[in-house]
Amino acid sequence: VVIGADAAGMTAATQARRRRGPDDLEIVAFEKGQHVSYSACGIPYVVAGDVDGLERLVVRTPEEFQSKNQIDVRTGQEVTEIDLERRAVHVNGTWEPFDQLMVGTGAVPIRPDLPGAQSVGIYGVQTLDDGAALLAELERKPQRAVVVGGGYIGLEMAEAMVKRGIEVALVERGPQPMATLDPDMGALVADAMRGLGVDVRTNEAVVGFEADDGRVRAVATEHGTLPVDLVVLGIGVRPNVALAERAGIPLGPSGGIAVDRRQRTEVPGVWAGGDCCESFHRVSRRPVVIALGTHANKHGRVAGINIGGGYAAFGGVVGTAVSKVCDYEVARTGLGEREAERAGFEAVTATVESTTRAGYFPGTKQLTVKVLAERRSGRLLGAQIVGREGAAKRIDVFATALWNNMTVDDALGMDLSYAPPFAPLWDPVLIAARKAWDAVEAGPVS
Amino acid sequence: VVIGADAAGMTAATQARRRRGPDDLEIVAFEKGQHVSYSACGIPYVVAGDVDGLERLVVRTPEEFQSKNQIDVRTGQEVTEIDLERRAVHVNGTWEPFDQLMVGTGAVPIRPDLPGAQSVGIYGVQTLDDGAALLAELERKPQRAVVVGGGYIGLEMAEAMVKRGIEVALVERGPQPMATLDPDMGALVADAMRGLGVDVRTNEAVVGFEADDGRVRAVATEHGTLPVDLVVLGIGVRPNVALAERAGIPLGPSGGIAVDRRQRTEVPGVWAGGDCCESFHRVSRRPVVIALGTHANKHGRVAGINIGGGYAAFGGVVGTAVSKVCDYEVARTGLGEREAERAGFEAVTATVESTTRAGYFPGTKQLTVKVLAERRSGRLLGAQIVGREGAAKRIDVFATALWNNMTVDDALGMDLSYAPPFAPLWDPVLIAARKAWDAVEAGPVS
Repeated sequence: VVIGADAAGMTAATQARRRRGPDDLEIVAFEKGQHVSYSACGIPYVVAGDVDGLERLVVRTPEEFQSKNQIDVRTGQEVTEIDLERRAVHVNGTWEPFDQLMVGTGAVPIRPDLPGAQSVGIYGVQTLDDGAALLAELERKPQRAVVVGGGYIGLEMAEAMVKRGIEVALVERGPQPMATLDPDMGALVADAMRGLGVDVRTNEAVVGFEADDGRVRAVATEHGTLPVDLVVLGIGVRPNVALAERAGIPLGPSGGIAVDRRQRTEVPGVWAGGDCCESFHRVSRRPVVIALGTHANKHGRVAGINIGGGYAAFGGVVGTAVSKVCDYEVARTGLGEREAERAGFEAVTATVESTTRAGYFPGTKQLTVKVLAERRSGRLLGAQIVGREGAAKRIDVFATALWNNMTVDDALGMDLSYAPPFAPLWDPVLIAARKAWDAVEAGPVS
Repeated sequence: VVIGADAAGMTAATQARRRRGPDDLEIVAFEKGQHVSYSACGIPYVVAGDVDGLERLVVRTPEEFQSKNQIDVRTGQEVTEIDLERRAVHVNGTWEPFDQLMVGTGAVPIRPDLPGAQSVGIYGVQTLDDGAALLAELERKPQRAVVVGGGYIGLEMAEAMVKRGIEVALVERGPQPMATLDPDMGALVADAMRGLGVDVRTNEAVVGFEADDGRVRAVATEHGTLPVDLVVLGIGVRPNVALAERAGIPLGPSGGIAVDRRQRTEVPGVWAGGDCCESFHRVSRRPVVIALGTHANKHGRVAGINIGGGYAAFGGVVGTAVSKVCDYEVARTGLGEREAERAGFEAVTATVESTTRAGYFPGTKQLTVKVLAERRSGRLLGAQIVGREGAAKRIDVFATALWNNMTVDDALGMDLSYAPPFAPLWDPVLIAARKAWDAVEAGPVS
C-alpha cells in the first residue's frame, strides 16, 4: 500500500513493480487529491502563462499506471488512519491490509496562525489542486495580490502574477527575500524583484488578514494595511506527518519521518520518502527536511528497489536548489553562513564577479559567485550563485565537489571545460574557489 | 627568464612577481611573435565575425606587464638556444643569463609531410599572428576553402568560413570528425556540419597540395582534387619542444617536456608549462599532452607560485573539452571507448537522450549523453555530450566526478539542482549515470 501518489510514492511503486511482477506483488496507491505524479514546481510557470495548462505538468495518469505498471491508483481517497498492529490502513470507511507500507504524504504549506488566515482567497502552491484553485482565482481578474514570504515559490509566484498584469507586493519578515541565500546574495535578488515592479517589503511581518464575507480583502502588517484580491503563501512548507505520528511511526529531530539509508522507518515493513521524511545532510551531518521533487524521486527509487527485494541506499543531500527570478538565475548548495555556524564550522568566504562566457564573447553575462570554506582545512562548505542566463547550473559543480568533501584548494585546479562561448579561461567556479583558498590561507579577519 | 610570453609563461611570471618584488626578482620574457597573453581559442570567432577584431583577444599588453607587474616582455625576440651549463639563453645575438628558467614554448600546428604543404595559403590557427594572416587572407575574398582534419579548431574554422560566405569542404581521414568523441557521438556532429552546408568528407586522406606560383590552388585527396583559394590545417598540434630537446631538457613518453607536480623539469631551476609540456591524466594515470589554454594557465600558476617560493601542485587533467559547432554544443571528459581500452579498462557504456529543461518548459532542447563506466566496479571513466543550447556545460559535473574517482552508482544519487527552467526532474547527468549503472549491473554483452 502506498499513501500519497506523487513523486516518492509512485516512484517507489514503479521501482518495486520492476522487480516483482503483478502475480507476486499487488500495489495499491491512495491519493486524497485528484492528481497523481505531477510536477508541482511547474505551477508558477502555468500561472505566468509560460506553460500552457496544468495538464502539461502531469507525468503519468492513474490509467497509465494501471495499464503500464499494473498499479491500482485510487484518487480522491484519503487514508485517515494507519494501524500498525492490524497492518492495515483505514480509507473510505474500510480497512485495507498491507504487507509493506510506503508513506509519501508530502508536505503542507505553512499557514500562519493569524486572524483571518483561513479566509477564502489565501492560497498555498503545493499541489496541482492548489494550482487549479489559483488559476480559477485568476479568472476573477484580481487587481492586487500579496505574496507572504520570499522563498522560491513566493518569488516565482510574484513574478508570475506580475506577468499576468497584477500589482504584487511581497511581504517578508526577514531582511531579504530568499532566506536560503546569505543576505548579501539575497539583496541582489531583492533588487531584481524591484526592477520587475514588485513592491518588496522586507523586515515587515504580517499580523493578520482582513476578510469580507469570508473572503480576504486586506493583509495587515506591522507597518500598514495592504488591500488585496488574492494572497499567496510562500512561507514554506512543513512535512505532512500527522497520520504517521498518530500511528506511532517515529519522527526525527527535524520533524520529518525518521528513515535509514534504505528509506526504512523504524517500523518493520514501513517505508517513507519525499517531503514528509528526513534526509541526511552530507555537510552538516544532520537530518534535514527539504521539500524538493528531486529528493522525493530519489527516496522513492531507493524505497522501491528495496521493497522489490533489491538493494539501494540514499546518499543524502547537500542542500542544492535553483530558481529563476525575473532575468536572474539563483542557486545555492551546501551551507550558508548561518547554517555553517550552526553546524559548528568556522567559515571564511569569498565573493567574485565574473562572466558566463569569455569577456569578449557576444552574449556574455555577469554572475556573482560566493563560496564558503572551512577555516584552516579549506574544506568547501557551500556556494551561492546569482546571475543572468547561463549562471546557475554551475552550482552543480559545487554540489558534486561537496558530495566528495573537496577542499577549495583541490577544487580550484579542476579540469572544467573551457571555450569562449561557454566560460572565461578560468571558469567562475574555479575563480571563486581560488579566492576562497586565498581567504583560507590569509586566515580569519579577527 | 621566461621563454614564450603566452598563457603559461606570463601566468608564471605574474604569480612569481606576486611573491617576490622587483628588487628581489628580475623577470624577462622573450616572445618570438608580436603578441603576448591572448586567447588563441577566440580566433575562429573573430574570423566568423562574432568577435570584433583580434585585439579583443589580447588579455594584457607588454606595456601593461611592464607597468603593472614590472615584467620586461620583449616581443619579436626568439630564443634560439638554451645553455644549461652556462645557465643562459641565446637571443638576438647575445646571451641572457638566468637563475630560474620557465619554458612556455607552446605548440605548433601539425603540418602534413606532403608535397606542397609549405605553399602560401595554408594556415594553422595557433597564434594571434596566424589569426592576423588568416584575416588578411580573407580580404582577398576567397571563394573556396578546405579544412584538413576535423578537430575542434577545424570544425570551428569551417563554420566561421561558412559564415563568411566561403564554400567549405572538410577532409577527415577518420570515419568521423571530432576524433576526441566516440564515433557514434561524432556522427551527430558530422550531421550538424552537413546541415550547415559544409561538404564533410570522411575516410578520405589528403595526399598533397597543388600550388601555382607557390600559392596553393588545390587539395589532392585519395578520391579527387578539390580546387581551393585557402587551406586551414585542423589536424592538431604537437608540443614545440625542439629548443628544450636540443638543450637536454628531458621529454616524457608523450613527447612533451616531462615535469613533476610542481612543474619542475628534470633540470634544477628549469620549469615548464603549457602546450609544450606533459600533464598527468588522472583517469588513465599516464602523462598526456593536451594543448589547452586552461591547462597552460594552471601550469603557469603552479610554476609561478613555486618559483616565487610558495608551494603549489598541479592536480592533473581528466581530458575535458568543449566546443560549439553550428547550433550544437559538444563536450567530452575522461576517456573515450578506445582510450579506455588502451588504458587497460574494460568499459560498459550507456547513451541517453534527454532535455536541457523540464520537457514541458519553453525553450527546452534535446541532448545526448554518453557515459563510460568500468565493468564490475562501476567507476566512471568518461562522458560525452552533444546537444543544443544549455547542454555542454553539464560536462563539468562529470569532470568533477572523475576528478574524485566516483562510481556511476554514487554519481546517480547526487544532489544536482532542479527547477523546470534548468533541468528535468532527473538531470540528464543523473539519468545517464543511472543507465550506466544498469549496464554495469547487467554485465558485459559477450
